[in-house]
Amino acid sequence: MEPPARSHGTKQIRLTAQPRDLMAETARAGAWTASIVTLFPDAFPGTLGLSLTGSALKAGLWDLRVTDLRRFGLGKHRNVDAPPAGGGPGLVLRPDVVGPALDEARLPGPLVYLSPRGTPFTQATARHWAAAPGVTLLCGRFEGVDQRVIDHYGLEEVSLGDFVLTGGEIAAQAMLDATVRLLPGVLGNAASTEEESHSAGLLEHPQYTKPAEWRGHGIPPVLTSGDHAKVAAWRRAQAEALTRARRPDLWAKRGA
Amino acid sequence: MEPPARSHGTKQIRLTAQPRDLMAETARAGAWTASIVTLFPDAFPGTLGLSLTGSALKAGLWDLRVTDLRRFGLGKHRNVDAPPAGGGPGLVLRPDVVGPALDEARLPGPLVYLSPRGTPFTQATARHWAAAPGVTLLCGRFEGVDQRVIDHYGLEEVSLGDFVLTGGEIAAQAMLDATVRLLPGVLGNAASTEEESHSAGLLEHPQYTKPAEWRGHGIPPVLTSGDHAKVAAWRRAQAEALTRARRPDLWAKRGA
Repeated sequence: MEPPARSHGTKQIRLTAQPRDLMAETARAGAWTASIVTLFPDAFPGTLGLSLTGSALKAGLWDLRVTDLRRFGLGKHRNVDAPPAGGGPGLVLRPDVVGPALDEARLPGPLVYLSPRGTPFTQATARHWAAAPGVTLLCGRFEGVDQRVIDHYGLEEVSLGDFVLTGGEIAAQAMLDATVRLLPGVLGNAASTEEESHSAGLLEHPQYTKPAEWRGHGIPPVLTSGDHAKVAAWRRAQAEALTRARRPDLWAKRGA
Repeated sequence: MEPPARSHGTKQIRLTAQPRDLMAETARAGAWTASIVTLFPDAFPGTLGLSLTGSALKAGLWDLRVTDLRRFGLGKHRNVDAPPAGGGPGLVLRPDVVGPALDEARLPGPLVYLSPRGTPFTQATARHWAAAPGVTLLCGRFEGVDQRVIDHYGLEEVSLGDFVLTGGEIAAQAMLDATVRLLPGVLGNAASTEEESHSAGLLEHPQYTKPAEWRGHGIPPVLTSGDHAKVAAWRRAQAEALTRARRPDLWAKRGA
């Protein structure tokens, strides 16, 4: 069969879905770029198109390219998968489909296969990706991708957590959300990323706001004392107690 | 101010966005239901509206209700948040906004606040939720929700992982995807959920499919031997070796 026409290739996704906008080069030159290979291109930008990540995408603070794996499918029906060698349920993504898609979609930066077999994604991964020029993410489906693709490209396998999803698309969105918010200019208040959970290896302290009394519950008096040192000490003690109680694994890592 | 009009209340989200469909009661009586409280109702169903979870939603195998937190906002500007008591960056969701929204949205089953401070979501959580009549998920934003809401409702805090998102919406989609695919009738091939990663406490063995040779890489001969017992033994050994090497934490739990 003929190679797929390049003109139907990688889409530049923008918030407004006008064809003219889809082709526009509004991203800043050299903007951090996520390149996604997926059977469900309509899943993007999805929730990443809303809120802070959406405004940042619109402002060109980052860029999103989506490559439709189906376009590389074989034969009249654009088949992308086949039964597992050795038998078993489900279907496996073919190497002669995924390979050419990766060849086209691959950008500088980490080359990642989203899989429950991978290394768990953490805040450290987000920081690492945010410091790279971008990231290329292969979204799995079905029973996964042929192992030869993983070996041939040296794909990093990264997992969203110890659970199984119908595909990698939502995992990609979660990882990109965590990463994009760390890019310069995306969050209005940079201090906010320093105090929150997991940034200092501690869970965040409890928060309170108005009104002073709600359904019979008040605010801890220290928070309205005006004594900034006491407030800081109380918050630190709360964060430490919470981390020890809920996440002894995180607490142990702090000591290490 | 007046209480919000009930007629603008909980939306029944369907795949087709026609107003008539939005109101239709096409879900099976007693279908498993997810109720979401969010400042970004447009984020739903999002990727959950595609693929297997989308077909299942359309078929009424599960139901999705979305409650817009903004509707419970205070004053002319529908404010939902205020600065943290005791100072600090960001904004905290007010208890007198979130409380009434939860009162309306709450369904039988787990009542959950999505937060990086929570217990990590795992396949066991997905199984637990799938066995309940449904789940109510409060999506956080900003610096989180007033602690009094968590205490008053006894909200379970659940985390997608050790990283920080701009909000709970993508986390909710990931958790619902993992849960919905376990509901009866959603996956075509039930055997598929038994062999995959994390279902047996092991990472999944490598998979191979056609073609027999790709870019000089073959398929392990055992998989084309036709000896089913040998194939099963090879896969088991691969899964165990992979789990030991990549996830000693999971491997240790198996022995416990």
